[in-house]
Amino acid sequence: MQLFIGNINGQFGELEAEETQHFSRVLRGKLGQEIYLTDGKGTLAKGVVTEIHNKSIQLELSEIQENFEQRPYFLHIAIAPTKNIDRIEYFLEKATEIGIDEITFLKSFHSERKNINLERCQKIVNAAVKQSLKAYVPKLNDLTKFTDFVAQDFSETKLIAHCEEDFERKNFKEILQPNENYLILIGPEGDFSLDEIKLAEENGFQGISLGHQRFRTETAALNAVFGLDWAN
Amino acid sequence: MQLFIGNINGQFGELEAEETQHFSRVLRGKLGQEIYLTDGKGTLAKGVVTEIHNKSIQLELSEIQENFEQRPYFLHIAIAPTKNIDRIEYFLEKATEIGIDEITFLKSFHSERKNINLERCQKIVNAAVKQSLKAYVPKLNDLTKFTDFVAQDFSETKLIAHCEEDFERKNFKEILQPNENYLILIGPEGDFSLDEIKLAEENGFQGISLGHQRFRTETAALNAVFGLDWAN
Repeated sequence: MQLFIGNINGQFGELEAEETQHFSRVLRGKLGQEIYLTDGKGTLAKGVVTEIHNKSIQLELSEIQENFEQRPYFLHIAIAPTKNIDRIEYFLEKATEIGIDEITFLKSFHSERKNINLERCQKIVNAAVKQSLKAYVPKLNDLTKFTDFVAQDFSETKLIAHCEEDFERKNFKEILQPNENYLILIGPEGDFSLDEIKLAEENGFQGISLGHQRFRTETAALNAVFGLDWAN
Repeated sequence: MQLFIGNINGQFGELEAEETQHFSRVLRGKLGQEIYLTDGKGTLAKGVVTEIHNKSIQLELSEIQENFEQRPYFLHIAIAPTKNIDRIEYFLEKATEIGIDEITFLKSFHSERKNINLERCQKIVNAAVKQSLKAYVPKLNDLTKFTDFVAQDFSETKLIAHCEEDFERKNFKEILQPNENYLILIGPEGDFSLDEIKLAEENGFQGISLGHQRFRTETAALNAVFGLDWAN
């Protein structure tokens, strides 16, 4: 049974506009059909299609589950997008399948990519949510300057992954705790600059290493995502 | 400093034919240049280029390290290739970066893809070895019929990942042991058939689940690769 994303209001649901097209035109869905619906905020329900309009599809819901498969941790990854956009798109899909709550794209000193198509990224994330039957849709934040980002307030444990041996780094594998919330900064192909690492430390970020290997940007990010999933 | 793959014979090394082209034409490498060389079997060395010929490049080696960053476990994944070949190629790259020893492509009952370009797969694996500075090159085995494969002798702990609730499955996360060697079968988009699961069990394979989620084929395989890396 297929999962759709939409709004949930008590016993009633409604598909988002884009999902409406998908249901009617691509899947040739009909009145009375049963589907899964999530609001992307933790609620998953079974629904029967009761009305089909051009830009909205109404559902009657049953078996409503809140906090469906909620993870015991919150993970926010801020990542400098790779030159090859396929690598970031793959990261988005895999991270959504395994478990992530928020992703911010970072504009950092050595970033080779200065733009990102947020709408396309959201489509990839939504498709992964639907394919892997999840009830939480990760939040995506547009490209943000590194210096602005690290100065913001965050309630998670703040970490910066880098390869600079002149700065103290802890092994993420050794320090990560179950049930703990993390914000992890992942640098671009040329790593964060020394000034950026210094600024992050001044703002309360702890330097970490994500393994002894020379990881690609998206592999380092995936390693954190899979690691937290395994540790929890 | 860049890593190349070749042959090592005592204090001397030689680049493989394909690497020769890459060194001379793409990188415009010269006599006296320093590079890293691996034999793909665990040895990593520094080398100085002493001779450049059309189809061979000779090196004098120093700082020869055997069993370079050897993992304490052996992992063999046998996987039914996905319809979309990009997904398998991405799996090959990421698995090589994180750590894998052998990959066999499986032809199973529900396989949508009946062919694989092994030479192209090897290139992807070699590129990942070089990029992530590894001294072991994973072994790739051509498409093998599921029924033939499971009847072979293996010395690793044999597991089959599937979603069939009619068969007993253990949670891989709960049973996996550090320093243990594993052979894990990963099914195609439509999962293994009931007959295949039965045959695998008759041949000593234990059914496992790789998580409660509906994983894509390559995500399930990656979950095993990352999981073993984290557990060791």
